[in-house]
Amino acid sequence: MANPPRPLWRLTATEILPLLHSGQVTVTDYAKSLLERIQARNHVKAWVWLPPSLILHQAKALDDIPTDERTMLYGLPIGIKDIILTKDMPTQYNSRNYESEDPINADASCILTLRANQALIFGKTTTTEFASTKQGGWHQNLTSNVHDQSRTPGGSSSGSAAAVADFQVPVALGTQTGGSIVRPASYNGCYGFKPTHGAISREGIAQWCPTLDTCGFFARTVEDLELLSNAFRILDDEPVPSHPFDLRTAKIGFCNSYNWSKAGPGTVGAMAKARDLLRRHGAQIEEVELPNDFARVLDWHAIVLAGEGQTSFLGRYLAAQSLLHESIKGYVENHKHVRHADLLAAYDGVARLRPIFDNIAVGYDVIITPSVIDEAPVGLEDTGDMSMCSTWTILHVPAINIPGFAGAHGMPIGLTAVTARYRDRHLLHAAKAIGEVFEGEGGWKASNL
Amino acid sequence: MANPPRPLWRLTATEILPLLHSGQVTVTDYAKSLLERIQARNHVKAWVWLPPSLILHQAKALDDIPTDERTMLYGLPIGIKDIILTKDMPTQYNSRNYESEDPINADASCILTLRANQALIFGKTTTTEFASTKQGGWHQNLTSNVHDQSRTPGGSSSGSAAAVADFQVPVALGTQTGGSIVRPASYNGCYGFKPTHGAISREGIAQWCPTLDTCGFFARTVEDLELLSNAFRILDDEPVPSHPFDLRTAKIGFCNSYNWSKAGPGTVGAMAKARDLLRRHGAQIEEVELPNDFARVLDWHAIVLAGEGQTSFLGRYLAAQSLLHESIKGYVENHKHVRHADLLAAYDGVARLRPIFDNIAVGYDVIITPSVIDEAPVGLEDTGDMSMCSTWTILHVPAINIPGFAGAHGMPIGLTAVTARYRDRHLLHAAKAIGEVFEGEGGWKASNL
Repeated sequence: MANPPRPLWRLTATEILPLLHSGQVTVTDYAKSLLERIQARNHVKAWVWLPPSLILHQAKALDDIPTDERTMLYGLPIGIKDIILTKDMPTQYNSRNYESEDPINADASCILTLRANQALIFGKTTTTEFASTKQGGWHQNLTSNVHDQSRTPGGSSSGSAAAVADFQVPVALGTQTGGSIVRPASYNGCYGFKPTHGAISREGIAQWCPTLDTCGFFARTVEDLELLSNAFRILDDEPVPSHPFDLRTAKIGFCNSYNWSKAGPGTVGAMAKARDLLRRHGAQIEEVELPNDFARVLDWHAIVLAGEGQTSFLGRYLAAQSLLHESIKGYVENHKHVRHADLLAAYDGVARLRPIFDNIAVGYDVIITPSVIDEAPVGLEDTGDMSMCSTWTILHVPAINIPGFAGAHGMPIGLTAVTARYRDRHLLHAAKAIGEVFEGEGGWKASNL
Repeated sequence: MANPPRPLWRLTATEILPLLHSGQVTVTDYAKSLLERIQARNHVKAWVWLPPSLILHQAKALDDIPTDERTMLYGLPIGIKDIILTKDMPTQYNSRNYESEDPINADASCILTLRANQALIFGKTTTTEFASTKQGGWHQNLTSNVHDQSRTPGGSSSGSAAAVADFQVPVALGTQTGGSIVRPASYNGCYGFKPTHGAISREGIAQWCPTLDTCGFFARTVEDLELLSNAFRILDDEPVPSHPFDLRTAKIGFCNSYNWSKAGPGTVGAMAKARDLLRRHGAQIEEVELPNDFARVLDWHAIVLAGEGQTSFLGRYLAAQSLLHESIKGYVENHKHVRHADLLAAYDGVARLRPIFDNIAVGYDVIITPSVIDEAPVGLEDTGDMSMCSTWTILHVPAINIPGFAGAHGMPIGLTAVTARYRDRHLLHAAKAIGEVFEGEGGWKASNL
């Protein structure tokens, strides 16, 4: 007996694209299916701006493109974190100072790339205020975790992670300054990819820390992340082998990192299980001890947040101080008393460690490390702890959350794979094979919902 | 016999501000005086957008602010390089793809800061295409050198430098990725200040190279640069002494830099005269030899231009390739065959040198080095050679063009003073005293026109 057909909203980007390209499914029908899914899952509140008439209007325009003029991301709906400028939708930054529903009439550079590839900009997803607070601003933190309404989806790319994990859209854009892609991906149970720092233009994206801010993607499969990486021309110097990554010849590092004392039972368990699973699949597993200097990286990360926050938020502070979150005011008023000398020590210290880490990392196919301290905590008012991610963000290396494990309350827990800078495609290549093992045998699947 | 009163447009920001604050001069009258000056000097073509009715409307609104509510930059007209977003004026990037006269309705972060300080955004000044070419795009290179219509004003902050040097506006914003502030300041004969990289938010400014792009100021006096630095809260860890900088106790380094072989007679003469003048004013002069590794910095700078240009321009390229300048297409298509490995070698190499240079620099009050290879060349189609500036840009140190010398054709030539990162105010403090000597005895004054 044949299974009933899967609803369109269940498909991944890689699954739907050939159907759209060939015209077997119209962009309009696919968009309608997603809109229905979103309506049925309204309580997740992943979106701050979702204009059905505009979406269907644009879907229709895409349907009118002749088959032979359809390009890489033809008809692909994508959620956009609401700190990224979209000329036809407002950008509100979850800020009381940006309540206007008039769009800022310019596209961020990354949106230009998506539109040129015929993607369908679907709507704006929730964020914390200017992607820099743990608490919300204007809207507070609207979004709930996809798997438990009482728990946080993580932040600051809350809505993008939730929308993708909840099958409301196949892919979404997020940004990471500390752990704002990897953490919500882990909390909601999907893939979240932060490429090498600088791999995607940040023009038109709210600035917090130029040294850290990185645009990246959410998806439910690694193939979908590869698809977006193709569109953004994220390529390694050495091409990835065309055959699948083979765990039996793999050498995989495990790095507990300097925050290991914070790790809860969910993360401790996931790391142990991951070691065991990968070993059983034939991989050589080796513990990675970072040199002592790396113990300072977390402090340096905090200094950069504060030091660059002071500059980045000055204009908004002077324009409308009373409308800003306390933590943002704190940056401008330098409540942490960060001196330029501290900031320079952080810059120069971590710059010295970047090539050292790269040299360590190229000794492994990937290094596995925690994504979060544990499963998503209860309560929406705090989006959780970024500290497991910050080291990789400030080292500028590509990082991906791979789902596959569950915590004590059955909530998803992912692990992060990292490698050296600009080995993004090698990372994705390995993550695909590792994800199959984690999702297959770790106790939790991205398609569980 | 009393001199006839100077026209208002002749005043510096520091001179006009108290008159505006007290109401002795209205913002409207001052703005009208500048508009008359601009009209009389129309051939300079420093502006791509200059809306008299909007200016006078805003001037009137400023006039209506009660005296006791007037703040730091009250009524100060400022020119804005046309790659910086202004919500009430179009931003056209000198690009054939941005011919629309509809403003992008958001202010760059730096514009928020200026407006919050009650500055008067006066108009948009010419730039080369996306501030990244030497040739113009849509408008070609409109602007001519203030002192000779047949010569280039330099670029990419062409209009900002020309407008300030020509007394069309007291101050202006520019940006520098190679030498786009210092070079046009030298060519037109005014002060141009590129602060420490990152000292001013770049949100809302076109991105070319996040590692290099720096917002800065043009003015006709160092006091005016200090005024703007106050508004942007550019402060050193150690405050500058309240007494004027004393050349008699100063230790000043001279660094010919690795491009000295390119220096023409104007720059060679200016460096010699500067040594002599400062020595005669009591300063201890010392030649600064940078370690051999610094010889690689220029190559690294070129690699960063190409490598980051590839990412930054991807969106605009995919959106409208045929409308882009060849050099910008070349970045995206990677005509220079820059590999990620090259880019990382550049990043890590120069990151290692930054603290080394800082350590050298703090041994001197400032280090004097060329701004340009010589006076502004004939012809508007090429904005000149950035190579004397690139080293300081990629080292992230503050740099200021100090005018005061003249070349073989009587065109202005400035010299650059640099110091360690985040010693911006110490640099300005010393530059004021040095500028008095250069302008007083070097053969060329910023107020010559």
